[in-house]
Amino acid sequence: MPTGRLMIIGGAEDKLRKRRVLREFVAASGGPEARIAVIPTASSLGEEIVEVYDALFRRLGAAEVVSVRPESREDAHDEDLIAQLGKATGVFMTGGNQLKLSAVIGGTPFAEALHEAHERGVVIAGTSAGASIQSSHMVAFGGPGSTPKQRMTQVAAGLGLLRSSVIDQHFDQRNRYGRLLMIVSQSPSLLGIGVDEDTAAIVEEIDGHEVLRVVGKGAVAIFDPARIVTNAYEAKRSSPLLASGVTLHVLPHGQRFDLTTRTLVQQAPEPDPEELAEIAEAGRDLRQLARDIAADSASPAVLRRRLARARQKTVTPPQDGAPR
Amino acid sequence: MPTGRLMIIGGAEDKLRKRRVLREFVAASGGPEARIAVIPTASSLGEEIVEVYDALFRRLGAAEVVSVRPESREDAHDEDLIAQLGKATGVFMTGGNQLKLSAVIGGTPFAEALHEAHERGVVIAGTSAGASIQSSHMVAFGGPGSTPKQRMTQVAAGLGLLRSSVIDQHFDQRNRYGRLLMIVSQSPSLLGIGVDEDTAAIVEEIDGHEVLRVVGKGAVAIFDPARIVTNAYEAKRSSPLLASGVTLHVLPHGQRFDLTTRTLVQQAPEPDPEELAEIAEAGRDLRQLARDIAADSASPAVLRRRLARARQKTVTPPQDGAPR
Repeated sequence: MPTGRLMIIGGAEDKLRKRRVLREFVAASGGPEARIAVIPTASSLGEEIVEVYDALFRRLGAAEVVSVRPESREDAHDEDLIAQLGKATGVFMTGGNQLKLSAVIGGTPFAEALHEAHERGVVIAGTSAGASIQSSHMVAFGGPGSTPKQRMTQVAAGLGLLRSSVIDQHFDQRNRYGRLLMIVSQSPSLLGIGVDEDTAAIVEEIDGHEVLRVVGKGAVAIFDPARIVTNAYEAKRSSPLLASGVTLHVLPHGQRFDLTTRTLVQQAPEPDPEELAEIAEAGRDLRQLARDIAADSASPAVLRRRLARARQKTVTPPQDGAPR
Repeated sequence: MPTGRLMIIGGAEDKLRKRRVLREFVAASGGPEARIAVIPTASSLGEEIVEVYDALFRRLGAAEVVSVRPESREDAHDEDLIAQLGKATGVFMTGGNQLKLSAVIGGTPFAEALHEAHERGVVIAGTSAGASIQSSHMVAFGGPGSTPKQRMTQVAAGLGLLRSSVIDQHFDQRNRYGRLLMIVSQSPSLLGIGVDEDTAAIVEEIDGHEVLRVVGKGAVAIFDPARIVTNAYEAKRSSPLLASGVTLHVLPHGQRFDLTTRTLVQQAPEPDPEELAEIAEAGRDLRQLARDIAADSASPAVLRRRLARARQKTVTPPQDGAPR
C-alpha cells in the first residue's frame, strides 16, 4: 500500500469562499467517511481554533472531527491521545509556532504514530507551522528578504515525513526567498520548497516516484541546489551568500513536479471548453473560405469579410483574457 | 578600444560612510582627472539632488562635476547640452522615475550621445531609475511579491547599453523576485538582473566577453531563463505563472559572472592574511607534534596539551567569524 498523501499548505488557506485546499483535504480523507484528527499544538489559541476547523471540516462533509492536542512531551507519550491518531483517516496540523510543535512531539511516540499513520495511507495535512514541520529540516524562524545572508534563519529538525527537504510557508507574502536560499546553500542535499498562502503542495507516491501537485491560489517555488556553487562555509557574519547555479521552479495550480527526478511533469494545458468551441468554429469558417477561394465562387468583398470574421475569432483575446 | 564600464547601482548607495560604490565610480572615471556629468532627469527633486552628488564626487576627488538635465524631448535635441556629454569621462544618472527618463531621452540625439560615450570608453553609471534605464528592456513599474504573476509589472524600452537584459533595483529590499521572474518568463531571450541597494553590478568588456563584477553591501541576482518551461503565453488575468527550470545565481561582493557564457567566474577565495598566519602556525605545531610522537620524546601529558593547542588554533572560529 502506498504511503498517504502529504498536504503542505502555505498558511491562510481560504475558509469562507471556494475552500479549494480544505475541500481537497476532506475529500482525500474519505469525504463522508472522513475521521479527522486536528492537532492544534502549534497554536497559542485555545479551543476556538479547533472549533473553526471542526465546523469547517463537518461543513465540507467529514463524518467526525476530534481534537488531539499534546501540550507537553509527557502528553506526547499518552497512549489514549496516541490512540486517537490510530482511528483517523486524515490528520490536520494547525498553524502557530512550529518550534513549539517540534519541541513537544519531536522524537516521541506521538510523532512515531504520525509516521505510522502516513505509512498506512492516512492523509497528513498541515498549514503554516503544520506545513514546516513535515520536512526533514525545518525553518525554526528567521528574517525576511530576497537575498540569502549568513545567519538570517535557523534550522531545527522537522518530522521528516518529506525526506531531504526544507519547507517554507507564506512564501510570496512574507518575502522568504532569501532564507530558503540560505538554507539550501548551507545544505545542498536538501530540496527547498516554498509554499504561498492559500496554496497546497500535495505529495503522493505514484509508480514509486514522489510527485508534488499544486492546488490553490498561489504557487509553490522549488529550489534545487544540486549544482550550486556557494561560499556558505566561509561567509562571515551576516554577509550575502554566493549561491550560483540553483535551479528554480515556480509552479502554479495544477502543475506537477516529480520530486524523485526533480523535473517538471509536462502536461498538455487543460483546454477551456468555451475556447475550444470558438477555435473549432473559426476553423470551420477558414475551411469554408478556402473552398470558396478554390471554387472562385465568392466576390473579393465577401471573402474579405469572411476572412476578417475568422481572424477575429481566433485572434481577439476575450476581455481580460490571455494575451495571444 | 573596449567600451566603457557600466555601473548598475541598486539604489540607496552609501553616501556618508565607506562610499564603496561611489568611490569606485569616481576612480573608474579618472579620479583626479574625472569630469563627471550628472543626469538628474529621473528625479522630481530640484538642484538639491545635483548639489549632493556634486559635493560627493568632488569630495571623492573628481576634478569637475556638471549637471546635464534634459527636461523635455526638445532639451534632448539641444546641441549645447549634448556637447556636455562629449567632454565627460564619467556619466551618472540619478534615481527617480525611469519612465520619465526614458520618455524624455529615449530615441533622441541625447541618448545617442550616451551610446557614443559608452563606445569610446566613458563610464556610464546610474542608480535605481538610472540603473533600470541601462538595459534593453526596462521595468517601467510594478508590484512587489516573490511569486511571478501575469500582468504584475510593465516593460518599456531602456537605453540598451546592456543588451538582451532587464535590470531591476532595490531588489532585496522591495521583494522584486516575482516581477523579474514574470518578465523573463514572458521574454526568455532576456537575462534578468536584480541589484540590491548599496550594491553595483559593474559590467566591462574583457577579452571579448562581457563580465559582471559585484561591488557593495548586498548581492546581484541573475535569472537565466534559457531552459525555462512556462505558461506565460496562456496564463489568464493575474494568475501565478509556471516558470520551471530557471537558473538562479546570487552574487555577493567580489564575485564575477561572465554574461557572455552565463557562468560564474570561479575564483580562489581571497585569503585573510591573519587567518593564513594562524593556519601556518597551527601547521608548524602539528608537524612538531608528529616529530615528537615519532621520536617518542615527549610525555603523553605534553603531547595532549600540544595537540589541544594546535586543534584550538585551527578549529576555533574567531568571534562572530565564519563557521568551520
